Amino acid sequence: MESSKMDLYRPIKRALISVSDKTGVVEFAKELAKRNVEILSTGGTAKLLEENGVKVIEVSDYTGFPEMMSGRLKTLHPLVHGGILGRRGTDEAVMQEHGIKAIDLVCVNLYPFVKTVSAPDCSLEKAIENIDIGGPTMVRAAAKNHRDVAIVVRAEDYDRVIKEMDANEGSLTYETRFDLAVAAFEHTAAYDGAIANYFGLKAPDYGIDDGAERHFPRTLNQQFIKLQNMRYGENPHQKAAFYKEADVKCACIATAKQLQGKELSYNNIADTDAAIECVREFDKPCCVIVKHANPCGVALGQTLVEAYDNAFACDPESAFGGIIAFNRTLDKDAAKAIIDRQFCEVIVAPHVTEEAKEEVARKKNIRLLEIGDLSISPKRMDFKRVNGGLLVQEADTETVMREDLKVVTKRAPTDDELEELFFAWKVCKYTKSNAIVYTNNKRTLGIGCGQTSRVFSARIACLRAEDAKLSLEGAALASDAFFPFRDGVDAAAAAGIKCIIQPGGSIRDEEVIKAADEHGIAMVFTGMRHFRH
Amino acid sequence: MESSKMDLYRPIKRALISVSDKTGVVEFAKELAKRNVEILSTGGTAKLLEENGVKVIEVSDYTGFPEMMSGRLKTLHPLVHGGILGRRGTDEAVMQEHGIKAIDLVCVNLYPFVKTVSAPDCSLEKAIENIDIGGPTMVRAAAKNHRDVAIVVRAEDYDRVIKEMDANEGSLTYETRFDLAVAAFEHTAAYDGAIANYFGLKAPDYGIDDGAERHFPRTLNQQFIKLQNMRYGENPHQKAAFYKEADVKCACIATAKQLQGKELSYNNIADTDAAIECVREFDKPCCVIVKHANPCGVALGQTLVEAYDNAFACDPESAFGGIIAFNRTLDKDAAKAIIDRQFCEVIVAPHVTEEAKEEVARKKNIRLLEIGDLSISPKRMDFKRVNGGLLVQEADTETVMREDLKVVTKRAPTDDELEELFFAWKVCKYTKSNAIVYTNNKRTLGIGCGQTSRVFSARIACLRAEDAKLSLEGAALASDAFFPFRDGVDAAAAAGIKCIIQPGGSIRDEEVIKAADEHGIAMVFTGMRHFRH
Repeated sequence: MESSKMDLYRPIKRALISVSDKTGVVEFAKELAKRNVEILSTGGTAKLLEENGVKVIEVSDYTGFPEMMSGRLKTLHPLVHGGILGRRGTDEAVMQEHGIKAIDLVCVNLYPFVKTVSAPDCSLEKAIENIDIGGPTMVRAAAKNHRDVAIVVRAEDYDRVIKEMDANEGSLTYETRFDLAVAAFEHTAAYDGAIANYFGLKAPDYGIDDGAERHFPRTLNQQFIKLQNMRYGENPHQKAAFYKEADVKCACIATAKQLQGKELSYNNIADTDAAIECVREFDKPCCVIVKHANPCGVALGQTLVEAYDNAFACDPESAFGGIIAFNRTLDKDAAKAIIDRQFCEVIVAPHVTEEAKEEVARKKNIRLLEIGDLSISPKRMDFKRVNGGLLVQEADTETVMREDLKVVTKRAPTDDELEELFFAWKVCKYTKSNAIVYTNNKRTLGIGCGQTSRVFSARIACLRAEDAKLSLEGAALASDAFFPFRDGVDAAAAAGIKCIIQPGGSIRDEEVIKAADEHGIAMVFTGMRHFRH
Repeated sequence: MESSKMDLYRPIKRALISVSDKTGVVEFAKELAKRNVEILSTGGTAKLLEENGVKVIEVSDYTGFPEMMSGRLKTLHPLVHGGILGRRGTDEAVMQEHGIKAIDLVCVNLYPFVKTVSAPDCSLEKAIENIDIGGPTMVRAAAKNHRDVAIVVRAEDYDRVIKEMDANEGSLTYETRFDLAVAAFEHTAAYDGAIANYFGLKAPDYGIDDGAERHFPRTLNQQFIKLQNMRYGENPHQKAAFYKEADVKCACIATAKQLQGKELSYNNIADTDAAIECVREFDKPCCVIVKHANPCGVALGQTLVEAYDNAFACDPESAFGGIIAFNRTLDKDAAKAIIDRQFCEVIVAPHVTEEAKEEVARKKNIRLLEIGDLSISPKRMDFKRVNGGLLVQEADTETVMREDLKVVTKRAPTDDELEELFFAWKVCKYTKSNAIVYTNNKRTLGIGCGQTSRVFSARIACLRAEDAKLSLEGAALASDAFFPFRDGVDAAAAAGIKCIIQPGGSIRDEEVIKAADEHGIAMVFTGMRHFRH
């Protein structure tokens, strides 16, 4: 800036207050009034302040122009906007000539458009009526003129403003006004983004219309909020940052509280997310170990330590330096077993006991995360970045239920086999395609992932089981997509597999079913595929 | 809507025109004037129109309030905004009482903020002065009141407006006004998003500051433009759409022109992107075949058909149903070889000869894409979605040069070996981690991808070569990250590998180098890792 810092203290003598979210506004106005700030206000805000004994001047009294058109026209007046936009030290003469009084602080927030339109009964007319015109104009004008004017759009800033005024003889600093201005443009950007998304779904052919609801607006407008800059991205030469949604809907990596350890890396966050989303699928005590975006061991157990031991045993080599996730409060036994046995990057659980914390504290570098109670993963949009564009899809949060399964072989799976198949299926959903997962007794025996052909994934899963000295005799097999040929089933039978879960849907299903029948394998079709790339 | 469609025709009798981008505005205004539309205007637009013989009324003459504060205050007046926001059939009395004239069409576009701030010499003051306050207010007000008012923010809509007026006795339909209103909110959302991104980088500690530039604003505001709804996403139960950037910077999947074939699927687009980005890395005629997000065969050749034959030979099984990308104009020979031999989902090339088109036309379902001349992939942001958040990083567009390589073994690679190593390294960059790639004579022999341990990827790459009956004797090896132990090098030597390229950086580099020296292997370190998950 051309001026020195001291030159940019600005005393607050007149404020305009007009808010939709009235949290704390009465107290804020009272504190301002106590400090001899003259308050301009409109409509509901003016009424509320007056009822609470705060003296206000109605904007319409100031402008001499009445509020009209059911409130559509209130503040769009040069006496208001000249007062906000006028440059101190430059525009005083013209302001005086036209009776424009300088407004030093604007406190405005906007009607929660997202909330309004997400109500199931919200009509287009109601949505339109709730598009604020005067509000964003005041917010943007004050933010533009932040060199001289403060714009407050968040209730959590009220206290800070008052404190800073008290510390600076009624003035705010340039740094604070700049910070508030950034928040103001963030507020209007999110607001108009939400309106553009809403309208972009409303016209014919703009969204996929499957009767009940539309998806995918004509333009996709998004705002994410930065949680942290990262040391680097997937590789050291890539800069990176981690952002969260404005409204995080469940316990997840974005809600994680780090209890100890080094800073999370980009790959830590990606892998921890994969581990949490997988472990979330299970009701019984579960341990998921993830390495390079794939589970390398998953097991249920009576206790977490049992689950961990069996998850680890599936692939001890890969587990080294992995991400270990649990779906229960991490206890001392499980924590001790990990710390005694292996190096890992991250341990994550809904909660962590004090004793478990002490165990993990033996290795200071391990990142220990507490994310809160797990619930079902909410519907959300998933993104896949491509050069020049963005693939947007619903995240793969659906699962099949017992009643969705279709037994296609002569032999139906027993109840035990069915439970095993569900376990294998859920692990398979979080394994990169092509994915083949062998399990028994609710533990993975071999995971074949990330291959360009299905039969190769099956082969890898076998090799993995061999390496880990785990027998496939009597095991279950899950395949994330259909078997294109019978060779996969023949190979599975040779390995000792007794039951198979897969989507079905190949033109050679008949041949595949015949193979299973020949081997006495029980096979079920899910009708749902889980490609994950 | 509560009214019938006929009720919602709105005659255009008065227009307000105030544009930053003046493309076509004179002609548009002339056409409006010819149709007896009264034109209000401001500043530079008014001057331009008058110079071109269009009669305009200056807004300041209409409001009786002068333009002031260097243009900050021009249109923020109730006579303007009452004219835009007034509801036909409801507000006529109050409008008449206060001398407010109805404005039926608003033609406003905003200063290109993104362009302004991307100029290297743009100061904060200049950026701030270019934040439009009056413009967005008019745009938003007219868009809100689209039931009665038309808002035109794009020059490409001028013609359509005039034509529709002529077809409807000077009126526009509701459908058109709605469509224009969506565009208006898209315009303001993008505008404030760009401002929020810009300001979100400007304050201390908001962005990573590495001296020259800042990255990662406090909130990330993005707008993508829908190219198409898709039948479904990664799986049939997931809805999906494909969006592009507002300003696509090079030939890529987002610029693809489909010449024939079925509609592209979500997985087609993701895999085609991977194939294009890989093939782009090579100067000589190259073919890349991608399956399930991984290359399953890559080769250079004197001709495209030679490159294709060798890429195919690496893994014919996986190539079935794959994506085949070229970095040269697709010719008849290559097209014929593919069509004669195999089923594939997509063929993509910068250009396609007429003869090649005829060859591909023999299989109607194959998607044939022309994307234009390949250039270096531009710097861009890459996203990885996690539950509740978004990981943002610079895309991995960097590459090592010959001078970046460090020979670490006693034996230095020959020039031929170096060329081979570069080829292997580039393929490895596009292979999912952990990635091990064996090549010889500029063709892949075995690709080990997507594994949770590096040694397993090496094993898979060997198995792949065995399956394809390709000898590894004298081959090159690329590893996307360092070897943690010497076992990987020992195994490579046993397989016949003669040279290795890898990032280096392990605490056991010395042990790994010693192993290479023992086997007479030439090894170079890149100092750059290429994890890709």
